Amino acid sequence: MSVKYSLFLAFVITFSANAQSTQQRVREYRQTQETALMDEYREFLSIPNVSSDSVDIRKNAAFILQMMKKRGISGTLLNGPTPGTTPAVFGEVRVPGAKKTLVFYAHYDGQPVNPKQWAEGLQPFVPVFITAPAEQGGKIVTTYKSGDPIDPAWRLSGRGSADDKAGVMTILNAYDALVKSKIALTSNLKFFFEGEEEVGSTHLGEIFDKHRDKLASDLWIIADGPRHISGKRVVQFGVRGDVNVNLTVYGPKRPLHSGNYGNWAPNPAMRLVKLLASMKDDNDQVIIKGFYDDVVPLTASEKQALAKVPNMEAALKKELGIAQPDGNGMPFVELLMRPTLNINGIQSANVGAMAGNIIPTKAEAVLDLRLVRGNDATRQIGRVTDHIRAQGYHVLDHEPTDAERQQYPKLIKISTGHGYNAQRTPMDLPIAQEVIAAVQTTSPDPIVLSPSSGGSLPLYLFDKVLSANVVSVPVVNYDNNQHAENENVKVQYLWDGIEIMAAIMLIK
Amino acid sequence: MSVKYSLFLAFVITFSANAQSTQQRVREYRQTQETALMDEYREFLSIPNVSSDSVDIRKNAAFILQMMKKRGISGTLLNGPTPGTTPAVFGEVRVPGAKKTLVFYAHYDGQPVNPKQWAEGLQPFVPVFITAPAEQGGKIVTTYKSGDPIDPAWRLSGRGSADDKAGVMTILNAYDALVKSKIALTSNLKFFFEGEEEVGSTHLGEIFDKHRDKLASDLWIIADGPRHISGKRVVQFGVRGDVNVNLTVYGPKRPLHSGNYGNWAPNPAMRLVKLLASMKDDNDQVIIKGFYDDVVPLTASEKQALAKVPNMEAALKKELGIAQPDGNGMPFVELLMRPTLNINGIQSANVGAMAGNIIPTKAEAVLDLRLVRGNDATRQIGRVTDHIRAQGYHVLDHEPTDAERQQYPKLIKISTGHGYNAQRTPMDLPIAQEVIAAVQTTSPDPIVLSPSSGGSLPLYLFDKVLSANVVSVPVVNYDNNQHAENENVKVQYLWDGIEIMAAIMLIK
Repeated sequence: MSVKYSLFLAFVITFSANAQSTQQRVREYRQTQETALMDEYREFLSIPNVSSDSVDIRKNAAFILQMMKKRGISGTLLNGPTPGTTPAVFGEVRVPGAKKTLVFYAHYDGQPVNPKQWAEGLQPFVPVFITAPAEQGGKIVTTYKSGDPIDPAWRLSGRGSADDKAGVMTILNAYDALVKSKIALTSNLKFFFEGEEEVGSTHLGEIFDKHRDKLASDLWIIADGPRHISGKRVVQFGVRGDVNVNLTVYGPKRPLHSGNYGNWAPNPAMRLVKLLASMKDDNDQVIIKGFYDDVVPLTASEKQALAKVPNMEAALKKELGIAQPDGNGMPFVELLMRPTLNINGIQSANVGAMAGNIIPTKAEAVLDLRLVRGNDATRQIGRVTDHIRAQGYHVLDHEPTDAERQQYPKLIKISTGHGYNAQRTPMDLPIAQEVIAAVQTTSPDPIVLSPSSGGSLPLYLFDKVLSANVVSVPVVNYDNNQHAENENVKVQYLWDGIEIMAAIMLIK
Repeated sequence: MSVKYSLFLAFVITFSANAQSTQQRVREYRQTQETALMDEYREFLSIPNVSSDSVDIRKNAAFILQMMKKRGISGTLLNGPTPGTTPAVFGEVRVPGAKKTLVFYAHYDGQPVNPKQWAEGLQPFVPVFITAPAEQGGKIVTTYKSGDPIDPAWRLSGRGSADDKAGVMTILNAYDALVKSKIALTSNLKFFFEGEEEVGSTHLGEIFDKHRDKLASDLWIIADGPRHISGKRVVQFGVRGDVNVNLTVYGPKRPLHSGNYGNWAPNPAMRLVKLLASMKDDNDQVIIKGFYDDVVPLTASEKQALAKVPNMEAALKKELGIAQPDGNGMPFVELLMRPTLNINGIQSANVGAMAGNIIPTKAEAVLDLRLVRGNDATRQIGRVTDHIRAQGYHVLDHEPTDAERQQYPKLIKISTGHGYNAQRTPMDLPIAQEVIAAVQTTSPDPIVLSPSSGGSLPLYLFDKVLSANVVSVPVVNYDNNQHAENENVKVQYLWDGIEIMAAIMLIK
């Protein structure tokens, strides 16, 4: 055991003595308030929050302002200079004599929904309790009514229930629990809830830039993403970057009978599958030229941290029904430190009962490129585009004109989302160590330290615009179906989350 | 000029003298009846006719019986021995002294519809007139009301408008025109309208078998498919066979966040694109082992006929926006004489605004295999399945169980539609020559003789079960979007179709 680590442990043990009773008081307060907390959260989840829905998204912001007001936090909306953009919701609590300022971040917008894909009885914006995930045969608790006891093993279903209204919920209730339990605050606290995270935080940089003074801090704590698959609590020191690439390959101008034109008219679905297939080899490695060239190798402390992360692969394989994962034998935790090329979705014409015997007019796919330290979103998209050109495609940024159709045998439209690069905070930063210690007080289990989440947040902006330190402290269960149908949060994780956020708020 | 061809021409010229006036009388009758014919046809098209919709499909059969009754044809429904199957509609007109019996075939069921894919204002079962195809900027003739003059350049939009209620419409109105114009019939006429063609004529064989005597004939005339791309009239002597193959490749049991699992969890969309890409080479040739082995080469007369088919490739490329067709330079007409492997549709998760950053649970595709003389549907499916196995897949006929998911790295479900083999009638059969002559009387343009349609009908059953001769005489415009959104028929083609069918009915 290193001297440094011994000192750290001593610090944790001292810290823990006080923390234990704090955690107990926060818990007791929550236990008396479960119905009220959950009624409010269900109301929050009932407000549709798809990022692109600019009307409803503002209702969410208004709801959060109301939540703050109820808790005695003076809140305000922060707009960027671009007119009409989705505001962030900001609140601040100044504590006399405090030496540090902590900003708690979550986002209130959610991913798009396709209600048809949700399990029977589940709707994205009608939150209900379910006994287990829909995929595992969970049943809706149809008898539940406000005031009934809430089983902490239940899950609350709905878009945003986990990603990431749970962050808003646990942060504001942690603050409330501390105040109502008369536990003295020790740091200035700020709250920042974003409304554009799921569309790439398009205007976050300009909001930061405009409100730079208001957002000054010692540390940002990001409440987003899932706890470790083992259920252990996690502190993360970075995120992968992310950018989407939309591809549309064109066939004949109108759908053609597959008999009357089959073998002659180019099929855009066949062209797209050949193009996508050309991007990876049979060992799941991306074979686009230069795809891995920029990756900065892991540091020694990052490697150490990864080595300590519990290995959950066997359990995951069983749970997810996977006999053989991708990655050619590389460990799960290391695979998350590499860039990805994922097919989010592909579509051409119809399948199943709606399929017709036709040659479709177009075939579309959405790629998701996760980026790691060293990658640059624009550069990575450039490599994908170069690869597509090397396969003989003429690249467009618009629907092809008749002239372009006559000139180029292979046409593709490429458009990209608002992407961003990866971010990492050094793990040995003192304030980061204090967060680790605080989170560790809430559980006897050793917490997991992760150099980077597999997921993404635009954390590079915090560094670039605000020169801020950032750590992520996820609160929700890993099996929450975030970004997909049947999203859900396990009730116990919300309760735990309140305790975790409260512990961090007491950093001195 | 061969002696044989000279004799044939002499025959056509003699036949034409009478035919001209017959055609004129049929046309004049139609001209007085356009409103009534079109009102009835629009009502017919308003009845949904997706093959799988067993309730509505019977309303179509009832409507046809009514159409027959109005025209003095005693109609009846022919059921097969299997209970609950869709009936064929049969009618018969016996002509004293007739030496020949002709059966006129069309089908009244249609392909599935996805109303969302139809152009604005167009609905599959709300027939309206449009000034041009939707894809070419055609406008709905919103001012039209029953009784208004009908521009023959307009199109009538709706599922089944071309494929193949147009067959029913032209056949029954051709008969009516002859009778009302007091033109003496010369052959016994039978009418047979099928209701399961678009799902592979599952029970046609057993209906034939059960009603063998009733269906005795010298020739079946199939009114289905489009006239030649040039607009010329066509007689076809065969069809390709057809069978669908549905593929589902499996990924994780629940949709996963593409960041938290990306690089590790297998993506079924990537697997499916690699699998489909492995089926064709870069010259669009199918590289599944043995795929072309069974093909019976064209006969000399078939090759001659193909050589005379007008070459429309330049016009088609322009119209369809294709710079470079598939087929590695082989002529269009020859490509239609080869087996195909077409992707009808592919889907995994979502694209566009509904796409999320996920690893999907499954990816699906529907293949369409067109078959030519020599191919066998079962054998061809076997080759595709063998190829899939050779790519490392374990093939299932059901959703994978947990045990199968644990055992096999690559899982695929394969299901097949009710397919059938190709059929060809010898082009030099005397009665086939009489049909050619009859159709030729309706137009000064030389008609196109095609050894085989690119499209498919279960014509092998006519040969196998009834030992019948079959030729196809298509009536609709080629650019009718059959099987797809915005299906339409050009009004002039319906009028022509009545004249063509009437001419064939007068074969002695």
